[in-house]
Amino acid sequence: MTPVELLRIFDLAGVAVFAISGALAAGRKSLDLLGVVVIAIVTAVGGGTLRDLLLDRSAFWIVNPTYLLTIIAAALCTMVYVRFRRAPEQALLVADALGLAFFSISGAQIAEASGTGGLIAVVMGTITGVFGGVLRDVLCAEIPMILRKGNIYATAAIVGTSAYVVLQDAGVIKLWAAVAGILVIVALRLAAIIWQLSLPVFTLEDRR
Amino acid sequence: MTPVELLRIFDLAGVAVFAISGALAAGRKSLDLLGVVVIAIVTAVGGGTLRDLLLDRSAFWIVNPTYLLTIIAAALCTMVYVRFRRAPEQALLVADALGLAFFSISGAQIAEASGTGGLIAVVMGTITGVFGGVLRDVLCAEIPMILRKGNIYATAAIVGTSAYVVLQDAGVIKLWAAVAGILVIVALRLAAIIWQLSLPVFTLEDRR
Amino acid sequence: MTPVELLRIFDLAGVAVFAISGALAAGRKSLDLLGVVVIAIVTAVGGGTLRDLLLDRSAFWIVNPTYLLTIIAAALCTMVYVRFRRAPEQALLVADALGLAFFSISGAQIAEASGTGGLIAVVMGTITGVFGGVLRDVLCAEIPMILRKGNIYATAAIVGTSAYVVLQDAGVIKLWAAVAGILVIVALRLAAIIWQLSLPVFTLEDRR
Repeated sequence: MTPVELLRIFDLAGVAVFAISGALAAGRKSLDLLGVVVIAIVTAVGGGTLRDLLLDRSAFWIVNPTYLLTIIAAALCTMVYVRFRRAPEQALLVADALGLAFFSISGAQIAEASGTGGLIAVVMGTITGVFGGVLRDVLCAEIPMILRKGNIYATAAIVGTSAYVVLQDAGVIKLWAAVAGILVIVALRLAAIIWQLSLPVFTLEDRR
Repeated sequence: MTPVELLRIFDLAGVAVFAISGALAAGRKSLDLLGVVVIAIVTAVGGGTLRDLLLDRSAFWIVNPTYLLTIIAAALCTMVYVRFRRAPEQALLVADALGLAFFSISGAQIAEASGTGGLIAVVMGTITGVFGGVLRDVLCAEIPMILRKGNIYATAAIVGTSAYVVLQDAGVIKLWAAVAGILVIVALRLAAIIWQLSLPVFTLEDRR
Repeated sequence: MTPVELLRIFDLAGVAVFAISGALAAGRKSLDLLGVVVIAIVTAVGGGTLRDLLLDRSAFWIVNPTYLLTIIAAALCTMVYVRFRRAPEQALLVADALGLAFFSISGAQIAEASGTGGLIAVVMGTITGVFGGVLRDVLCAEIPMILRKGNIYATAAIVGTSAYVVLQDAGVIKLWAAVAGILVIVALRLAAIIWQLSLPVFTLEDRR
C-alpha cells in the first residue's frame, strides 16, 4: 500500500464518519432534509477545505467528487436508519474519535507533502480534524464544542499529530508514525470520554 | 450578447438586489450605519467570494471594484428610502428570488468555465446563491435561514442549477439552459412562498 | 529602515497585542486552556489570513511560523499574569487601538504591494484590522462587536486607511502616510472610547 493510497483510505473513512455525526447533530436541531445534508457536508469537508485554502491547494472535494457522493449517501442512510432504530450513541463516540484521528493525521501528511515544517503540519492536522465540527456548531449558533469546558478534543489532535511529527524526526518510518499518531488520538479521546478528563479552565474575574 | 456579457449582467443584478435585502435585514437588528453597509456587502459578495476561493480564482470584487461601489450605493439608497416609505415586503421577496436565480446560474457558469463537472457546477451555483445569506445570518448570531424548517431556498437553487446542467447535457444551448434554470428557481421559490411549501423535517428523538 | 522591515514590525506588534486581547476575551467566557490559545490565535491571525486568501497569497503565518510562537507565548503569559494581578483594562483599550492601527495600515500596504487600487487597499486594510475580532465574536456566538451600536471601530480603520491612501496620492511619501494613517486610527478610536462617540443607528420599523 503506497502512502498515497493510505492517505486516501484515511480520508474516505473520516469523511463517512463525520457525515454521519453531522447528520445526527442536525437531527437534534430539527432541520429539514436539505439542512441535514448541508450540515453533514460541512462537518465532513470543512476541516480539509480550510486546510486546502490555507495551503493554496484546490479543495479536495472539487478535485474528486466521490467525496460529496459518499457524504450525501451517508447522510441519507443515517436519516433512514434512525427512523427504525435508535442511534448508537456509544458506537458514534468511538467512530467520531476514529474520524478525528484519520483526518488529523492525513491533514498533517498533506501539509508535509506541501513542504511545511513540523509546527505547521501539527496546526494543519488539527485544523483538518476539528474545523468541520467548529463550522457545524457555528451554523447551529452555538459556541463551538472544542472551545467549551470539559472536552479533550483538539488537544487529542494536537498531541497525536505532534507524536506523528516527533516520531518521524526520531527516524520512525512514515507509516508507523502515522499509526502511532492515530492510536494516540483515539486513546486520548476515549480516555477523556470514559474518565471525563478536561483541561483546566481559565476564568477571568475582577479582583480588587 | 456574448455569454460573458450575460454573466456580467446576471452578476450585477444579483449584487444590487442582495445588497438591498442585506441592508433591510441589518435594519431589523438595529445596527449602525457602517454595520448596515458591512452586512449589505457580506450578503451580496459572500457567495461569489467563497466560490472564487474554492475554485482558486481571485475574488470577483477585487478584480472589479464596481461591485463594491454598487453595493454601497444600494445600501445607502435603501436606508434613505425606508426613512420615507415602508419597505415593500412583497416586492423584496420577488427581488430576492430573482437574485437567488441570477447568482446560482452565474455561479454554475463560472464553475463550468473553470472546467469542473456537472455535480460541482451545481454545488458552486448553490453556494454562490445562498452563502451570502448564510454569512448574514451567522453574523447576526442566528441559525442560518436556509437550514431552518419551512424554506425551499437552497433547494430551489439546487433544482434550478441541476436543470441548467441537465438541459445542456441534453443538447440545449447555454443561453436557453440558463434562462430555463432561472425560471425554475424563481418559480419554485415563489411557489414555496405562496403555498408555504417546505421539505420534511428530520427530528432525532430518543426512543426506547 | 526599509518598507519591508516596517511592515514586519507593524505586523508583529499587532499580532502580540491582539493575542493578549483575544486571551482576555476568552477568559471572560471561561474557556479551557486550549480554547484560550485558539481564540488568541484566531483573533491575532484571522484578519491577515482572510486578506491573504482574498489576495491569493499564502497565509502569512504559514510562511513564517514565528507568528504562531509569538501568539502562543503571549496567550500563556496573559493567563499567568491575570492569575496574580488584575488585567489593566485601560492599558488594553489603548493597546487594542494600536493593534487595530498597525494591522490596518500594514494590510493596506500588502494590498498595494499586490497591485490593487486605492478602494481595495482600504477594504483589505480594514479586513486585516477588524476580521480577527469578528471571528472571535462569532466563535463566542455573539453578534460581532463591530456591527453593534456604539462602536467607532471599523470606522476608524476605514478613515485611517483612506487617509493613508489619499495622502500618498497627494504626494506624501509612504512612511509618513503610514504614520499619519496610524495616528488617525488611534486618535479616532481613543476619542470614541473617551467621549463614547457612535454612528447613527438604522432601525427598520413597520409604519402604517
